[in-house]
Amino acid sequence: MSVAIRIDGDRLWGSLMELARIGATPAGGVNRQALTDQDKQARDLFSRWCQEAGCVMRADPIGNLIARRSGRDDTLPAVMMGSHLDSQPTGGKFDGAYGVMAGLEVLRSLHDAGVVTEHPIEVVAWMNEEGARFAPSMMGSLVYTGAMSLDDALAIKDVDGLSVGHELTRIGAQGSPDPYGKPAAYFEAHIEQGPILEAKGKTIGVVSGGQGQCWFQLTLKGRASHAGTTPMDLRSDALVGAAAIIGELNRIGRAHQPGCATAGRVLVSPNSPNVIPGSVYMTAEIRHPEDSVRAAMEQAFREAVDEAVRRNGLQPQLAKVLEQPAAAFDASCIAAIREAAERNGYPCMDIISGAAHDAVAMSRIVPTGMVFVPCAGGISHNEIESAEPADLAAGCQVLAEAVLSHAYSGNS
Amino acid sequence: MSVAIRIDGDRLWGSLMELARIGATPAGGVNRQALTDQDKQARDLFSRWCQEAGCVMRADPIGNLIARRSGRDDTLPAVMMGSHLDSQPTGGKFDGAYGVMAGLEVLRSLHDAGVVTEHPIEVVAWMNEEGARFAPSMMGSLVYTGAMSLDDALAIKDVDGLSVGHELTRIGAQGSPDPYGKPAAYFEAHIEQGPILEAKGKTIGVVSGGQGQCWFQLTLKGRASHAGTTPMDLRSDALVGAAAIIGELNRIGRAHQPGCATAGRVLVSPNSPNVIPGSVYMTAEIRHPEDSVRAAMEQAFREAVDEAVRRNGLQPQLAKVLEQPAAAFDASCIAAIREAAERNGYPCMDIISGAAHDAVAMSRIVPTGMVFVPCAGGISHNEIESAEPADLAAGCQVLAEAVLSHAYSGNS
Repeated sequence: MSVAIRIDGDRLWGSLMELARIGATPAGGVNRQALTDQDKQARDLFSRWCQEAGCVMRADPIGNLIARRSGRDDTLPAVMMGSHLDSQPTGGKFDGAYGVMAGLEVLRSLHDAGVVTEHPIEVVAWMNEEGARFAPSMMGSLVYTGAMSLDDALAIKDVDGLSVGHELTRIGAQGSPDPYGKPAAYFEAHIEQGPILEAKGKTIGVVSGGQGQCWFQLTLKGRASHAGTTPMDLRSDALVGAAAIIGELNRIGRAHQPGCATAGRVLVSPNSPNVIPGSVYMTAEIRHPEDSVRAAMEQAFREAVDEAVRRNGLQPQLAKVLEQPAAAFDASCIAAIREAAERNGYPCMDIISGAAHDAVAMSRIVPTGMVFVPCAGGISHNEIESAEPADLAAGCQVLAEAVLSHAYSGNS
Repeated sequence: MSVAIRIDGDRLWGSLMELARIGATPAGGVNRQALTDQDKQARDLFSRWCQEAGCVMRADPIGNLIARRSGRDDTLPAVMMGSHLDSQPTGGKFDGAYGVMAGLEVLRSLHDAGVVTEHPIEVVAWMNEEGARFAPSMMGSLVYTGAMSLDDALAIKDVDGLSVGHELTRIGAQGSPDPYGKPAAYFEAHIEQGPILEAKGKTIGVVSGGQGQCWFQLTLKGRASHAGTTPMDLRSDALVGAAAIIGELNRIGRAHQPGCATAGRVLVSPNSPNVIPGSVYMTAEIRHPEDSVRAAMEQAFREAVDEAVRRNGLQPQLAKVLEQPAAAFDASCIAAIREAAERNGYPCMDIISGAAHDAVAMSRIVPTGMVFVPCAGGISHNEIESAEPADLAAGCQVLAEAVLSHAYSGNS
């Protein structure tokens, strides 16, 4: 059952660079948000490449796009790899794209070597991991794993009022209910998106789990009125309330490190220089490796909202739109990754994922492991996101060996 | 020289309601932007009404429309009243229209009573006070008073590329250089557009002047990165910096009342829920009746920017895009208004105009006074703008008596 394949790091790098041309931004990043024309182009390119490597493509009703390579026994559950092709509005070339292209590179290497695995092998491009255009993030994997209803997800709209369902149809990305059962295991390769591996001089992060997180959407309604004629004491300024909450949220994060607390999106109405803001929409997210600490942070955030609402005479609408407990990955998947790294002599360390990933959603229903590689300065969700070809190749080799360890296989 | 006329509040209300049918919106407001067909209709109606009251109409080269009622000595400078007929896109029935219709009502009352004043009396409808279609606001009065060149104003275009000059010609609103010298005094009646009179239970606001103002545009650049993986201590969050500035700006305003300080517009980039904001654009405006206090407020604002920039590791770009000194109205005009209110037993108070008005432009060249009346909830620039007939009538009576006090007159 032991099989040795070597992935091709140059080919992997070439695929990443070709993919990055779709939605490329002048600043060297990528804007390829979920279900846009750019996302469709990326999906089409991925499909073509997988088919050229002997795979059959399918999509499920939420638009997860899956390449399947048959195993010797096709009734066995697949061993699945994957990540996502969608990006942030000012995203980089590697976040998500790396995991999908690494999966593709494993498929190609197996194809070239004529390996037939016992289990089928699948590579999935999850729909809308970023949540930038349609909140929440990880939509595809949440629906796949049953953590979110399909109908709820299809009804979610972007800022232009276009729904997920509408856009899935528009770009032809909606498929049929998946005919296969859940996979035997799931592996995802990803850039770390944080500064730890680089700082410690490690090539491979063996991810032991993910921190928990919760996301909020908050609308504050005040009273729009003339900025020159409305006395300060008679105002209900929604933006002043939002600013107080943003400041408090930052203090809460600082007081509970290594947890994080962030307001990422703010929309002001009417957003005119000489009109007091009558309404503000904002998002807030809170993360911590320990669920009990995260709950305390949430409580402090809610108190900050109450205080700002009271002081500014606002009407709040606060909704928690996502809550994920901290996740622990599967011991055998973790071991397979660590052993592959050590077998290849790659410096490695255990690490917690600060970001949410589709792997965190998958870990609720199947044995799951993740491979991290460093990215420059720990910077991600940014057009200057960068990673070394050698590190990406090392992560892909570890991914290949971890997958094979779970796909009991032999040479044909 | 003392003359007692009584204006007709019912007739005033009827004129306002008939005028409000021109450009009426389904929500009960008015869309009658400068130099549109609706504006032409309103100007034509105003002209007909004035002519029926014995006046001669003229227009000047920027389209200010003036009704003139001869005095006993027509070589004396006129006593002028006025305001504007143009509205915001979603404006109300009273902003501007009230001052013109109140002037008309004074003309009609003088006509009915057969009064001949010593000085001529004029009522002006200033062209484009709102600045909604063609920026800046107060265009007609700025050109009339020499604060803006005629050629510059004529060349300004709306979003469709149509110039002021083109549209003046199209609706036949352009006249000849004004044959008369500057007026002896200028009086304007206006709804307050703020909540103070209503809150204090006053019918008449005796406007002592207009506050000065300065407007700023501020861009803060930080570093966009992943909200889940970037430790709190390693962030350059532009939104956290902006929030601190917005909070400080509000505190500066509260600490310097009756001045105001407002952040009205905020644009966040990339504005994604799980990305630390890398850049924020915001506006700030500061107003105060005393220029020296406004300068101190500006200094405090600049210090708040410096502090937020330093604490969050940001790069700022701060530009002052507008600065207007405070205006003090004329002591004899103010006294005439106060005396008229007291003579009639109307509850009155001194008040500063928070908004800019044509009267502020006029005050730079002629003795000027303004009469404020309450509007419901202080709400203006809004289709629900509303005012009480009795308050409007009281303001018009005060206007009439203040004008007559400066028009040395007797019964014919």
